[in-house]
Amino acid sequence: MVVREVPEPPVGPSDVLIRVQYAGVCGTDLHIWEWDAWASGRLRPPVTIGHEFAGEIVRLGPEAEASGLLAVGDRVTAEGHIICGHCLQCRIGLGHLCRRTQIIGVDRDGAFADYIAMPASNVIRLDGIPTEIGAIMDPLGNAVHTVLEGGGVPGSAVFVLGAGPIGCFAVGVARAAGASLVVASDLNPTRLELARRMGAHVTLNPATDDVVARVHELTGGDGADLVCEMSGHPAGHAQAFAAARLGGRVNLLGTPSRTTEVDLARDVIFKGLTLYGVTGRKMYETWLQMLRLLRAGQLDPSPVITHRFPLEAIADAIAVIKDGRAGKVILEIAR
Amino acid sequence: MVVREVPEPPVGPSDVLIRVQYAGVCGTDLHIWEWDAWASGRLRPPVTIGHEFAGEIVRLGPEAEASGLLAVGDRVTAEGHIICGHCLQCRIGLGHLCRRTQIIGVDRDGAFADYIAMPASNVIRLDGIPTEIGAIMDPLGNAVHTVLEGGGVPGSAVFVLGAGPIGCFAVGVARAAGASLVVASDLNPTRLELARRMGAHVTLNPATDDVVARVHELTGGDGADLVCEMSGHPAGHAQAFAAARLGGRVNLLGTPSRTTEVDLARDVIFKGLTLYGVTGRKMYETWLQMLRLLRAGQLDPSPVITHRFPLEAIADAIAVIKDGRAGKVILEIAR
Amino acid sequence: MVVREVPEPPVGPSDVLIRVQYAGVCGTDLHIWEWDAWASGRLRPPVTIGHEFAGEIVRLGPEAEASGLLAVGDRVTAEGHIICGHCLQCRIGLGHLCRRTQIIGVDRDGAFADYIAMPASNVIRLDGIPTEIGAIMDPLGNAVHTVLEGGGVPGSAVFVLGAGPIGCFAVGVARAAGASLVVASDLNPTRLELARRMGAHVTLNPATDDVVARVHELTGGDGADLVCEMSGHPAGHAQAFAAARLGGRVNLLGTPSRTTEVDLARDVIFKGLTLYGVTGRKMYETWLQMLRLLRAGQLDPSPVITHRFPLEAIADAIAVIKDGRAGKVILEIAR
Amino acid sequence: MVVREVPEPPVGPSDVLIRVQYAGVCGTDLHIWEWDAWASGRLRPPVTIGHEFAGEIVRLGPEAEASGLLAVGDRVTAEGHIICGHCLQCRIGLGHLCRRTQIIGVDRDGAFADYIAMPASNVIRLDGIPTEIGAIMDPLGNAVHTVLEGGGVPGSAVFVLGAGPIGCFAVGVARAAGASLVVASDLNPTRLELARRMGAHVTLNPATDDVVARVHELTGGDGADLVCEMSGHPAGHAQAFAAARLGGRVNLLGTPSRTTEVDLARDVIFKGLTLYGVTGRKMYETWLQMLRLLRAGQLDPSPVITHRFPLEAIADAIAVIKDGRAGKVILEIAR
Repeated sequence: MVVREVPEPPVGPSDVLIRVQYAGVCGTDLHIWEWDAWASGRLRPPVTIGHEFAGEIVRLGPEAEASGLLAVGDRVTAEGHIICGHCLQCRIGLGHLCRRTQIIGVDRDGAFADYIAMPASNVIRLDGIPTEIGAIMDPLGNAVHTVLEGGGVPGSAVFVLGAGPIGCFAVGVARAAGASLVVASDLNPTRLELARRMGAHVTLNPATDDVVARVHELTGGDGADLVCEMSGHPAGHAQAFAAARLGGRVNLLGTPSRTTEVDLARDVIFKGLTLYGVTGRKMYETWLQMLRLLRAGQLDPSPVITHRFPLEAIADAIAVIKDGRAGKVILEIAR
Repeated sequence: MVVREVPEPPVGPSDVLIRVQYAGVCGTDLHIWEWDAWASGRLRPPVTIGHEFAGEIVRLGPEAEASGLLAVGDRVTAEGHIICGHCLQCRIGLGHLCRRTQIIGVDRDGAFADYIAMPASNVIRLDGIPTEIGAIMDPLGNAVHTVLEGGGVPGSAVFVLGAGPIGCFAVGVARAAGASLVVASDLNPTRLELARRMGAHVTLNPATDDVVARVHELTGGDGADLVCEMSGHPAGHAQAFAAARLGGRVNLLGTPSRTTEVDLARDVIFKGLTLYGVTGRKMYETWLQMLRLLRAGQLDPSPVITHRFPLEAIADAIAVIKDGRAGKVILEIAR
Repeated sequence: MVVREVPEPPVGPSDVLIRVQYAGVCGTDLHIWEWDAWASGRLRPPVTIGHEFAGEIVRLGPEAEASGLLAVGDRVTAEGHIICGHCLQCRIGLGHLCRRTQIIGVDRDGAFADYIAMPASNVIRLDGIPTEIGAIMDPLGNAVHTVLEGGGVPGSAVFVLGAGPIGCFAVGVARAAGASLVVASDLNPTRLELARRMGAHVTLNPATDDVVARVHELTGGDGADLVCEMSGHPAGHAQAFAAARLGGRVNLLGTPSRTTEVDLARDVIFKGLTLYGVTGRKMYETWLQMLRLLRAGQLDPSPVITHRFPLEAIADAIAVIKDGRAGKVILEIAR
Repeated sequence: MVVREVPEPPVGPSDVLIRVQYAGVCGTDLHIWEWDAWASGRLRPPVTIGHEFAGEIVRLGPEAEASGLLAVGDRVTAEGHIICGHCLQCRIGLGHLCRRTQIIGVDRDGAFADYIAMPASNVIRLDGIPTEIGAIMDPLGNAVHTVLEGGGVPGSAVFVLGAGPIGCFAVGVARAAGASLVVASDLNPTRLELARRMGAHVTLNPATDDVVARVHELTGGDGADLVCEMSGHPAGHAQAFAAARLGGRVNLLGTPSRTTEVDLARDVIFKGLTLYGVTGRKMYETWLQMLRLLRAGQLDPSPVITHRFPLEAIADAIAVIKDGRAGKVILEIAR
């Protein structure tokens, strides 16, 4: 992975060209940095990486221009999943599961660059949301999707298992959405501190707390109505299933790197649980919900941003993420 | 309507006897006071009226005792709809629509009294919620039902049309449930002030504001996602339908005393609206949601309580309600 | 309204040109024929009318070609609502309610012609469904939308009020979707006969039957779980609300030409009803459901097609519809 | 396990005494017969086993009598889960998940006997459904719950994985509910023949068919909208997850006896799947749906009943189940 000069990306008739101002560094970027099995199997270099960003529109293709919805100078971010629009999933409101999805920074050139071209239909105007916050709306949207899928959050008890950046965002979303109790757990005290700053009523550390017992205790013995599984660890899965109440829901976002032994009889069938796998952001319900929560001031993800680097210092950005003390790390590409 | 000595109510094997401490006065009680067409057609005097109350358990029937769930000294309120348990509606989770419902204070003796007997299954323990607040959980539950039916409140724009006590409660519930914009309207400035104290972002007075235009303006031209129709007036219905967005929802709680001319083509069919008629409280999902919002401190209905009277002064209580300057009026029956 | 030579429609880069083989005549076309208040207010002649059709692809714009999804020779029909794709409704899965919808045959040139150009994304391949059936999938989709919205049809009691072509289709859809009882009503015995052929268990004629009483009797006193209101008459609305069970649902498709007096207290609020206004077809869930029901042979709308005319005889087609003895009337434009 | 004389069960005030006519033998009864780890851990002998039954009311407790809903001579079956009525789950419509459930034939005396006493509220009148069919409504209700949870069955592709009695019932339920394609798989050809008789469009045998590939092929490459996992085998789980479409649903009923290795990333998260654990029957929505489907003649489970024995021959009944050639086995206790 190197920083080098590349040509300005071509702008199709329905595309807009965006000057990138801020970009977020994601766990996915680490996998690519380390060129692990997933990365080497999926990416076809050379590709510009980075999929979380915000910036300013500098040019529009003729059809994008004609629609009159976007203009040069608009501050924008974008949904990074470019979907086919005609498969079964695209046709029934599940475009986030389109099997022909092209992800920017993975399957096509991405946002760790001065300029990125995006289809106009994927572009979201910030309309007053700070541009830096715009750069983290991709992972924030993951959190919104995870918390709100299934409904019923107002008045409920939500357990966020794993307090990385998306977990911390989920804490804030659950509070904004009217959860009565938000509990977060992580092994990392720095992350738990961020979760508290995002509004967690209680934080638990599996190193010292009996997490499942504590969740039951905090919910009068019932368990959590909703568990947001953000850790991706088999131990997390076991805790998630055990901490959910009878008839509750576990929304799974954390991506495990290996299989998990699940006691489906005890943990899912006899408990009447619902499990749901979270991919991306609903296009575009999730974006709409997120925009509204941000604009109304109900959700402020800024405490999760702990580090900022220039693009040239991407190796340092990767390093602070790897050593586990970072929340969200931002690349400042232009102002 | 007189205050007089009556025998202590009989306590069946599954009943509990409750010493009433606070009782709320409701519009229904006014209809009875004025002995209008509805009241004279439905009530069979002598009957003790009053259906909003809270107090202390003083005696339990043997089966209520045996269940171990309630005890002498517990502070409690109760769901005032006593349902049959075996009709279609009771069997599919719509007990609030049971056609054999007996309402306390209407179809059987109620709560404007020193004691009331209630089936144990209708009794709700307050567990720390102030007893006076317990006395208004019946109408507060109406508001919870109205706001939360249909889901999707977090991030949404909610328009509460009619800011009587239940409308003001609805404002507070919508805020607690994460609505991004809560607008309330009423002709009565006192009520609008209460709506603001309950958290309304914007209040509108149809006497001076173009309510529908303002709701559209406040929502970027889209209209409200959810309209809570609490006024029961034909003019309110027209505004409700016009203020709702395409594909939005109108939950109707305000009970009209006459028919409404509805342009179903323009206002419902071409708009793709969903309308829903709110009766009572879902038994017992609504209670659970309300208990949680209250206990977590997300919802504080106390600003709506504007007047308190001893039982003997019920005529004064009725008078302040009729002259339109009251929010919720409480009878203090015992402490 | 005249039949005359017009230029072949232009085919944009994302469009396909379709040779029309069959077209359905709809009530909307009658309004235009009679140039009533709605028609003269909405249409800007000259415009080619007709919005229900099927035919064969004869040419593709370059982008439509490039997608590889459609080819010359494909038998197709099309969703006639051309939507903007970027408004709130389009972005949250309610594209059928897009406020910028252009309807073919109303707002732009339609299908009573040898050729029609359609955006490729609106085109639906028939894949073995008879082309003539393809020509009625627009109104059939209205019926699918009306019956399936709200879910829970399997095992339920469905009352279809109004047995015009879409009402008759709704009967067939309700049967295909597993309704346990399907009752249809209409004043017109010919239509009731069609409803029976589409699978209605019971047909009622308000001229001789107490429709509401009979629906309650047929449902053990409960009323219908779902009422599909297809008549658009105020008398139909009253029957719909009265025939629905407590907690039931009324989906309204029939478009009234005037307002309806609704007793919202008695008929909606105290009954806990849900009302839903049906516009068009969900894009494209409804199409998918319809395609599957047709291809599996669960739904055969062909009995509803009672008359076929050449395009030149459109006046005769209009006449048989107006005299009330027709089901669905088809124009045979080419084979 | 022995057949012997026991006293007639006591009949409480809210109970009815039922003379058992038919009883179904269930896999649970086999576990008890074999006194496996589960059975020896849960049952406290002596207990009369058997939980699937139907018969005739012969006596009513005074409160059951007073309700007027049931009478001596009524043919009835019963929900075998006796629930507490006041826990969180009981209060929010999830009584089938009540943590204090007492199951007849497991936790209290059951139905392999001349008489059984049941709470009146658990009793379901057959009203014309054959008494023998009444005896299998417990497992049939499991199938109804499994197929209908999640909605959207009309027009969908349903894959029933495991064609034991409940799997075969699920095939019939899916057909009755309007599924467009019903595929069943099992290793046992006898069971596949029963599945075909219940209406499976296609049956697959993993011994000779690539089950997952075939389901994708039959669904145009998409996969099944709904998978009903009835096998309880880890191999079945893997097939279930792989056969479901992106964004599809897997309802799990088959109870595994050991843990399953699940690739949550590949099979649940990236696929956006929903998993749901099925316990018992929804009380009483499932019963209502089942009663209607049976009474309307849409669902006929009788082909699944392959063997009938007198109570004394219970060892033979167990034997035919164990050797895998039986569908549902009935004990004829009285006529």
